[in-house]
Amino acid sequence: MAIITLTTDLGDKDFYQAALKGSILSLLPAVSLIDITHNISAFNISEAAFVLKNAFPYFPKNSVHLIGIDSVYNQNTRYLAIRYRDHFFVGSDNGIFSLLFEEDPQEIVELHIMQDLKFLHFPLTDIFAKAATHLAKGGKISEIGLPVSHVEEKMSLQPVIERDIIRGSVIYIDSFQNVITNITKDLFTRVQRNRNFALFFRRNESITQLSWHYNEVPEGEKLCLFGISNYLEIAINKGNASGLLGLNLGDIVRIEFYSEKNV
Amino acid sequence: MAIITLTTDLGDKDFYQAALKGSILSLLPAVSLIDITHNISAFNISEAAFVLKNAFPYFPKNSVHLIGIDSVYNQNTRYLAIRYRDHFFVGSDNGIFSLLFEEDPQEIVELHIMQDLKFLHFPLTDIFAKAATHLAKGGKISEIGLPVSHVEEKMSLQPVIERDIIRGSVIYIDSFQNVITNITKDLFTRVQRNRNFALFFRRNESITQLSWHYNEVPEGEKLCLFGISNYLEIAINKGNASGLLGLNLGDIVRIEFYSEKNV
Amino acid sequence: MAIITLTTDLGDKDFYQAALKGSILSLLPAVSLIDITHNISAFNISEAAFVLKNAFPYFPKNSVHLIGIDSVYNQNTRYLAIRYRDHFFVGSDNGIFSLLFEEDPQEIVELHIMQDLKFLHFPLTDIFAKAATHLAKGGKISEIGLPVSHVEEKMSLQPVIERDIIRGSVIYIDSFQNVITNITKDLFTRVQRNRNFALFFRRNESITQLSWHYNEVPEGEKLCLFGISNYLEIAINKGNASGLLGLNLGDIVRIEFYSEKNV
Repeated sequence: MAIITLTTDLGDKDFYQAALKGSILSLLPAVSLIDITHNISAFNISEAAFVLKNAFPYFPKNSVHLIGIDSVYNQNTRYLAIRYRDHFFVGSDNGIFSLLFEEDPQEIVELHIMQDLKFLHFPLTDIFAKAATHLAKGGKISEIGLPVSHVEEKMSLQPVIERDIIRGSVIYIDSFQNVITNITKDLFTRVQRNRNFALFFRRNESITQLSWHYNEVPEGEKLCLFGISNYLEIAINKGNASGLLGLNLGDIVRIEFYSEKNV
Repeated sequence: MAIITLTTDLGDKDFYQAALKGSILSLLPAVSLIDITHNISAFNISEAAFVLKNAFPYFPKNSVHLIGIDSVYNQNTRYLAIRYRDHFFVGSDNGIFSLLFEEDPQEIVELHIMQDLKFLHFPLTDIFAKAATHLAKGGKISEIGLPVSHVEEKMSLQPVIERDIIRGSVIYIDSFQNVITNITKDLFTRVQRNRNFALFFRRNESITQLSWHYNEVPEGEKLCLFGISNYLEIAINKGNASGLLGLNLGDIVRIEFYSEKNV
Repeated sequence: MAIITLTTDLGDKDFYQAALKGSILSLLPAVSLIDITHNISAFNISEAAFVLKNAFPYFPKNSVHLIGIDSVYNQNTRYLAIRYRDHFFVGSDNGIFSLLFEEDPQEIVELHIMQDLKFLHFPLTDIFAKAATHLAKGGKISEIGLPVSHVEEKMSLQPVIERDIIRGSVIYIDSFQNVITNITKDLFTRVQRNRNFALFFRRNESITQLSWHYNEVPEGEKLCLFGISNYLEIAINKGNASGLLGLNLGDIVRIEFYSEKNV
């Protein structure tokens, strides 16, 4: 059965989410509708990009991922359908796609809009549901829009490398209050070159050991690891790292690498 | 695949929602179970009616909409199955149906109850799941109950029109904190007759322009529009209208219409 | 269609829940994925056991129930698949199964783990999804692990009976703020032997009548009943019993039984 996933800020309380699902089911009754989440903070495309970027690779190829964030119509809005790593994405060209993709997509089209735009109150039901079901049925992406060369760019905070130091920042706090930075395992490994390190944050906190699992330290102790998100994560075994360590979104962390004899 | 939607106040944490879904799947494994929401405020049939009224038309005809709000058994309780605009509804006759429907339903039956009512602890699994799956399978509504002429009436606050003034009230605050009133587009258009208007609320706030989209005003500015709910809505572009404007459920709003030359 | 239910503490906001669903759908696209809940308090296996114990019997036989709580790998961790009352359960052997089952399961196996455990960051997608889909497809439990004789025991607080008194405790507060104790209907009936009783809690509160339904007392009045959970429950008709009566998790309640003439 074809899969359409939904990533939105519509919440779990209003009728908006149901309207979207009803619209999809009216066009394609035999579809597997999977909620990635509807609890993205309102209009927060960075958060949506982080969540979907980490979730979509788990789904089968040819899944369709509908993104319903910050999609209100205005004159400059473009609605896109995109093929990337053999998955399909439908959403508003508000910058989220540049945060989501690490390389150029396979295909990008700007969706045809057949209606009077004045009356386009809910593009998710009016435009996105049609595009997503078309793709879920195996329809060609070229049939629903005209080719576009690139997506809107939105800058994201990247880690800075200065010789033996990586400066990164906190990009996500999960519901266990684990603190996730923008330092990938690839970057860490490349700069580390097997040396020892110290990860500094807040005033005097530091961690000098990389764990494999949350429970390698005693309960209540802090640790750092590359979790399932593949980003460096600061956690407390069975504890609230964000709260207890005072680490919030946007906070800076610093990793210093040492040749072995200095440690 | 047959569709059964669920609108309840059971929340997303206890086992009640799962018990309902398990009961339905035990009777009809090949069903598309769609959550409208389980986060209706406890016992709040007005809120449930608002959400479902706006959501159900997006679903295909013959969808079954199960309503699990305020359904505890007592001697005066009637459990109903209803056909309305070629959709099916199953729930308790607690007044919600009069809030949900704008015209007389096509069919109403009071559900047969085959068990000792003393032991009827959870009508959603015991009664509603059976009725909903019967209808989802294409069974006749007349096979599960006896005809009833009308549903329990519950009064809802209606707007009042005095010559060139509409007085309405706030009936819903959505999760973006948009403020939704009980003034429909039809009523507004009928009284407006192409004249200018001013929408007044709180002490000194007013809006004199109708927007088509949330983003027609600068971010942080207030606006009013007919959103996807088809009711007049007061919003702030990317902001919290309820909080910032101090508008809460039940608050009064007033629209005055002017002949063009007076404005 | 095969059913896999999910009971986790992953929340409704991060990508973890979606990663689990994507993993399952990649292995078995034609599956009915049902959320029991993802809102179990972090690491709370007692809460998860209570919810799933009350939910699973509503599902059809041969349903697979995946439990994603407290499953981080360590040297002593065993991951199990279990057949119990013709349902299947997959999860970590952290004590939850002893809380979930009332008699010995039909089969228990310790799951084969084919990968380097160092890199096992998310057993839910790596191990549990494989086991659950194998079972959902009708595969034998003996094909995915080696037999194990018993599950890890975790003690739960049991009611104490002293002659004509039952001392129990509060084990769950639901989202309506109903207060659920660990006193089952069986135990109550066995000790009661048709006598009158008084249920005492907090300092001076007591209830001497067993209700069948929440609405047998006036709105705002307290009552006790055996609800759908089959445990003795203290509630307020349409009110917040936990808050208004000051009853919290772990609090003690006492039932005294009287011969008829003494009352």
